Amino acid sequence: MTLQQQLAFLQEIDKLKRVLRQALLTGDLRQENTAEHSWHVAIAAIILADYADDPVDTMRVVKMLLVHDIVEIDAGDTYAFDEAGHIDKAEREQRAAKRIFGLLPNDVGDQLKALWEEFEDAQTPDARFANAMDQIMPFLHNIWTEGANWKKLQPAFEKVYQRYQRRIDGGSTRLWDYVRSELEEATVKGWLVR
Amino acid sequence: MTLQQQLAFLQEIDKLKRVLRQALLTGDLRQENTAEHSWHVAIAAIILADYADDPVDTMRVVKMLLVHDIVEIDAGDTYAFDEAGHIDKAEREQRAAKRIFGLLPNDVGDQLKALWEEFEDAQTPDARFANAMDQIMPFLHNIWTEGANWKKLQPAFEKVYQRYQRRIDGGSTRLWDYVRSELEEATVKGWLVR
Repeated sequence: MTLQQQLAFLQEIDKLKRVLRQALLTGDLRQENTAEHSWHVAIAAIILADYADDPVDTMRVVKMLLVHDIVEIDAGDTYAFDEAGHIDKAEREQRAAKRIFGLLPNDVGDQLKALWEEFEDAQTPDARFANAMDQIMPFLHNIWTEGANWKKLQPAFEKVYQRYQRRIDGGSTRLWDYVRSELEEATVKGWLVR
Repeated sequence: MTLQQQLAFLQEIDKLKRVLRQALLTGDLRQENTAEHSWHVAIAAIILADYADDPVDTMRVVKMLLVHDIVEIDAGDTYAFDEAGHIDKAEREQRAAKRIFGLLPNDVGDQLKALWEEFEDAQTPDARFANAMDQIMPFLHNIWTEGANWKKLQPAFEKVYQRYQRRIDGGSTRLWDYVRSELEEATVKGWLVR
């Protein structure tokens, strides 16, 4: 029975490859899906771990990031600056976590659900660095595509700045320093309107 | 300079999202790309680690799997049963590894390249289990899609069997036992022609 549960979970999460995000890929500018984002951000954590403000367990951060968006299979991706979508986001995601991690045998299902909750709470050093990584990715996609996503959705500069500051500066002051100066530069280039 | 190198690497590997594999997704049956495969197989390793024949360092296996296909950015995905494509595969991939991991600062670039080489050599317990995970994924995609890929490409049963046996049984006898009986079952269902 256990193997069947494990394989049912692996089958279920295949659906994450069909959940689309706002970020646009380099090259063909298609929308990124959440599965490939989860891969990219996990590698970012490996590559950038030295920038964490506090000591982190890098591979624990990686594990957290691999599962941090699985709830989107049920709850969908909520664009960072979609205020209406955020009203019941926590409730939708909590229900999704219960169902999807619940497909697994209890020990590993509970462990992964706890890692997801730790990510959402963003209080521990591991979770704060994971959140910084998760936030730096859409920033990098904008830099790599000359602000394609900012130009398309035109979020207010102050909201972008505050959200990025909260999540990136919360895990890595050094990376926030870099992002902050690039955000200013992006307004000069006309990628992001102040 | 270091941060610029690290970000250049993260930008470069965005291209892996545009490398297509033969595996077909559940749902819309589109071809899987290598980035989302890398995410899925990394989670498979976490979920199925208990089936490894020898003790493995699960998160080291995960790290190996996250980078094991990055060379495909230059070398492309070579279908398992494409004999012509395999003639210069090793050479193409070696060149790719040198270029892509070479974008990183030496310490981390060398470490990730060494992990990729360990995966390719498939000798250590970690690498053998990683190879078993990498091979079980296309099998699972076929099971989940009623053999969609087998029906489309019609590989010879014996070649499928032997390749799966070599790579899966090399890392997990118990998972090979399961796969073997499912392969037999697939011929009965007409998904795979003997």
